[in-house]
Amino acid sequence: MSDLVRVAVDAMGGDYAPAEPVKGAVEAVNADERVKVQLVGQVDVIEKELQKYTYPKERVEIVPATEIIETGEPPVNAIRHKKDSSIVVGMKKVRYGEADAFVSSGSTGAVLVGGQTIVGRIKGVERPPLAPLIPTKDGVSLLIDCGANVDARPSHLVQFAMMGSVYMEHVVGIKNPRVGIVNIGVEEEKGNALVKETYPLLKENPYINFVGSIEAREIPNGAADVVVCEAFVGNVILKLYEGVGATLISKVKQGMMTSLRSKIGALLVKPALKETLKSFDASEYGGAPLLGLKGLVVKTHGSSKANEFKNSILQCISFSEEKIPQKVQEHLADYKSSREAAKDGV
Amino acid sequence: MSDLVRVAVDAMGGDYAPAEPVKGAVEAVNADERVKVQLVGQVDVIEKELQKYTYPKERVEIVPATEIIETGEPPVNAIRHKKDSSIVVGMKKVRYGEADAFVSSGSTGAVLVGGQTIVGRIKGVERPPLAPLIPTKDGVSLLIDCGANVDARPSHLVQFAMMGSVYMEHVVGIKNPRVGIVNIGVEEEKGNALVKETYPLLKENPYINFVGSIEAREIPNGAADVVVCEAFVGNVILKLYEGVGATLISKVKQGMMTSLRSKIGALLVKPALKETLKSFDASEYGGAPLLGLKGLVVKTHGSSKANEFKNSILQCISFSEEKIPQKVQEHLADYKSSREAAKDGV
Repeated sequence: MSDLVRVAVDAMGGDYAPAEPVKGAVEAVNADERVKVQLVGQVDVIEKELQKYTYPKERVEIVPATEIIETGEPPVNAIRHKKDSSIVVGMKKVRYGEADAFVSSGSTGAVLVGGQTIVGRIKGVERPPLAPLIPTKDGVSLLIDCGANVDARPSHLVQFAMMGSVYMEHVVGIKNPRVGIVNIGVEEEKGNALVKETYPLLKENPYINFVGSIEAREIPNGAADVVVCEAFVGNVILKLYEGVGATLISKVKQGMMTSLRSKIGALLVKPALKETLKSFDASEYGGAPLLGLKGLVVKTHGSSKANEFKNSILQCISFSEEKIPQKVQEHLADYKSSREAAKDGV
Repeated sequence: MSDLVRVAVDAMGGDYAPAEPVKGAVEAVNADERVKVQLVGQVDVIEKELQKYTYPKERVEIVPATEIIETGEPPVNAIRHKKDSSIVVGMKKVRYGEADAFVSSGSTGAVLVGGQTIVGRIKGVERPPLAPLIPTKDGVSLLIDCGANVDARPSHLVQFAMMGSVYMEHVVGIKNPRVGIVNIGVEEEKGNALVKETYPLLKENPYINFVGSIEAREIPNGAADVVVCEAFVGNVILKLYEGVGATLISKVKQGMMTSLRSKIGALLVKPALKETLKSFDASEYGGAPLLGLKGLVVKTHGSSKANEFKNSILQCISFSEEKIPQKVQEHLADYKSSREAAKDGV
């Protein structure tokens, strides 16, 4: 039993709670026998949903939590006052070592605040980044940071690059992941003050495979596996990705409906096209991990369906088995001492 | 003759010079009799291109310039030393009132530097923004600023909003254009230090129709006509727009080629789809104006073809006829005195 990866799941968060998180949790335990889920929320509501499914009872537990944090609530207040909310209760499971990870599609602000204040940062981490996987031409990249703390310092970005590299290598399975910093040109002297100051620190960092600046145009092309940027820029990238994608797909659909000829064609291309566009759909890749914490916290889209919950839960297995927090802590500590040694040497 | 709008065109700049800029210039004078073009560059090269076309000779002039500024050259140096380059010569025509506008698809850096140092800023303008039109679901929006000067101040963004509004109203023809500031949430307290400081200044500005913060997701939806942001963010938005669009369209094409059934369908949808996607193609809207200068400078894509040159040249007609620089100068001066009056009153 102790070998199971224990994932607490917020059964009350997101647009389709409790139906979709519960369904996703059931699908996850049915898909992989290494995982056990703890559904956190109102017991009667969760039980009613669970009755719909067949699943191994010993790997699905209900953890009672009576309150719900709404999306619009000021996060700091909500975390402080709603002690019996599914987010607070679920995060406490991680904090006290009763769960290895927590998955929620509830309020992003509350998840970020709770992650920092309840789960707690790994020693040495200055700021925990939110790092979604975004689809690229032939795979995925990690966009780090998209969190709520803007106006980052260079030392934050360096830690993002290191944490993102550990995650991509050991959870997503990309050997020696390429790290790029988002910039307005590829030349070393280009950029704003933050990027110019961060660039040399990344260049000399022995823990990452730094490939230099990347322009936003090259992100969908997969020019880097770990795309480092400050959270304001990351947020713009993430949301524009969704926005341009949605608008273009609606344009394509609209274009296919303009004549009888194209309508017939549309019927013929539809199945193939659907399959291809799925590979460019962010929800296929599970949620965004909040890195740098003592346990894993995964934030999924507010509009997540069962499939995204399932993928997010399964993501937690590698995270836990690969001991990501320990690896992050070691790298950061080694880096810090090597920097200090270099300073003393000068 | 003096009623004609005189547009100097860099015949030597961009990936397809001199063929495409010359062709675009000829198409522009043939399309609108209010315009006269001055093709700036090497005389023999331009003459050779012009021989291919029929056009009203009295509205096409050649202005000799022997040198060419390459894309990779450090801009400040290039502008200073290549006095007989097509960019420097073309901009001097605007500076000395011998042309109303200058269109170039040469080095962005050189165009920005030349615009500021040769053409010169309108009195009161702190920083001239580069403001491309980007396609949206049902039209276009002005993305301001995408220039090379990053780390802007709030007063810069306020001027961008005002200049952008004048341009959208009087050149593009959108009455009372909606101004939005790019942010990571729509709530007034969200944002980085720059956005938080700028927000109240935009809110109280009587010269614009401020609609508040917009998230990047809403930009392709057309949530604002004038999309205000700092140049680093603007650059990321512009390039990601291109990148996501290109990747998605290649995915759509690839998806259509996966089976015999979908290949047949692809043949049927192709013409209709092409027409629709054209409306989402940035090159349809002419180049990006560099605003806040004494004359109009338009930067077109490095990969511009004749059609983009033509559209950029035709854009200059409204700009000149509507006396945009005068309007900008008046608005900025009025705003400045109203701010000073308010301060004295307190």
